[in-house]
Amino acid sequence: MKKDIIKTFSKNMKRIRVNAQLTQEELSFSSELHRNYISDAERGKRNISLKSVEKIAKALNVEPIEFFREIEEEKEN
Amino acid sequence: MKKDIIKTFSKNMKRIRVNAQLTQEELSFSSELHRNYISDAERGKRNISLKSVEKIAKALNVEPIEFFREIEEEKEN
Repeated sequence: MKKDIIKTFSKNMKRIRVNAQLTQEELSFSSELHRNYISDAERGKRNISLKSVEKIAKALNVEPIEFFREIEEEKEN
Repeated sequence: MKKDIIKTFSKNMKRIRVNAQLTQEELSFSSELHRNYISDAERGKRNISLKSVEKIAKALNVEPIEFFREIEEEKEN
């Protein structure tokens, strides 16, 4: 099965944000990235750069590597 | 100690390429990225995108997560 780095990133980003009980707007504020950018990133619509990955990681208080783990999917289409 | 995602990425990229016994030129060819881009990426001079990370990972036959591990440095300046 072919993996897609943007898909892996976006799913992990959303999962970590939701687990942290932050809204996209709150993450936007703390990461200093536009709310539309956060929304697009979580939907896999952006080919984001390493610096943006770092901003999001810091705002979510995790290491960047956490966005690249392959997490088992549960009943997801 | 503050970590820097670009520094972590570039050090891992070079380490993995050298371990794979590939030249920058060979990696450039197999990743379809310009040789100057590969060189800059390894020196931490580029804020590269996720798609480029994926191209480099595929060319080096590793998962993208391998570029984000914090490896202990041994006597490196």
